Amino acid sequence: MRRFVVVGHKAVTNPKFSLNDLPGGAGRMDIIARCVNASLFLSHDLRRDVEFFAVLLGEPAPPVTIKFSGEHVRYLSPDERSPAALIKKALERGIPPEGEAEATPGVYISKRSFADVISGMDNLVYLHEDGEDIRSVELTGNETFVLSDHQNLTPEEEAVLDAKGAKKVSLGKKLYHADHCIVMVNWETDRR
Amino acid sequence: MRRFVVVGHKAVTNPKFSLNDLPGGAGRMDIIARCVNASLFLSHDLRRDVEFFAVLLGEPAPPVTIKFSGEHVRYLSPDERSPAALIKKALERGIPPEGEAEATPGVYISKRSFADVISGMDNLVYLHEDGEDIRSVELTGNETFVLSDHQNLTPEEEAVLDAKGAKKVSLGKKLYHADHCIVMVNWETDRR
Repeated sequence: MRRFVVVGHKAVTNPKFSLNDLPGGAGRMDIIARCVNASLFLSHDLRRDVEFFAVLLGEPAPPVTIKFSGEHVRYLSPDERSPAALIKKALERGIPPEGEAEATPGVYISKRSFADVISGMDNLVYLHEDGEDIRSVELTGNETFVLSDHQNLTPEEEAVLDAKGAKKVSLGKKLYHADHCIVMVNWETDRR
Repeated sequence: MRRFVVVGHKAVTNPKFSLNDLPGGAGRMDIIARCVNASLFLSHDLRRDVEFFAVLLGEPAPPVTIKFSGEHVRYLSPDERSPAALIKKALERGIPPEGEAEATPGVYISKRSFADVISGMDNLVYLHEDGEDIRSVELTGNETFVLSDHQNLTPEEEAVLDAKGAKKVSLGKKLYHADHCIVMVNWETDRR
């Protein structure tokens, strides 16, 4: 199983946001939406061996984690509004007292923090411009790739990754949008 | 100059579409919008050496070509609605009697067909699963990459490319969304 974890530092944690204003009122939920689709879509198909985790840290009730399963997700279309609408529905469903709840098929909501999400994972890869070039790195297809949104990971979030021995891996000298990084990682893994 | 040309076979050619329904009423304008941003965006920067051409072939007045210049474009944000809004504004500006008109800074509209657009270009690359692997192909940074939307290029469109000696180049055995293909091409070119 390949996994992507994206931290939405301002992404809102209640369902009252407008699908017509994902960058503004929803706290750059547009980035999260694009990352969902970069993770899961092939042309006319879904990547069933991929899971995507969005850790939402915006107001009013952070943290909230939304998980998309490539194997089980339904009602997902390639446009940006579609994953955002599924996140909105998950937030409407609300956070279960413990564990995670399936809000719509293949979309799950929980109260997990970034540290909680990372604690359950192995083979962590932190995509970072100072890392080893991805084209020289062994990829088994069982990695968890961690990315940030338009802001860098905080020192506290980086410490969580360090404690788990995450490997820094680079996509090159230019800096890319998170969803574009995910496309590159999927492509690179497809070619191994 | 690196160029991308994407054919939107159903993408509408008047400005009456809703930004809230890009996949449906606007004829998969969501695909075109994502391709604009995949072509032009780096993190917190634009690719000034890239031009993007959308050939819109939907009703009611095809063809219409919208060009985005990475060097000159303004008011472009990474979310899907933003390039779609600029296309809508260009269609509101209307098609000039001849040549192209600048509708907003760095966004140009013309009556050019796919054949018209291609006729002015050299070093054409047709992204196709039967082509030579892109990682084995020489890239100078001056190529024009041609992609289709959710439908394949028609035999007539392929004949236009054949007549110009376009080279078929492949991104691998899987089939990808057009915007994801553009991310891969940009990344591959960045690494040369």
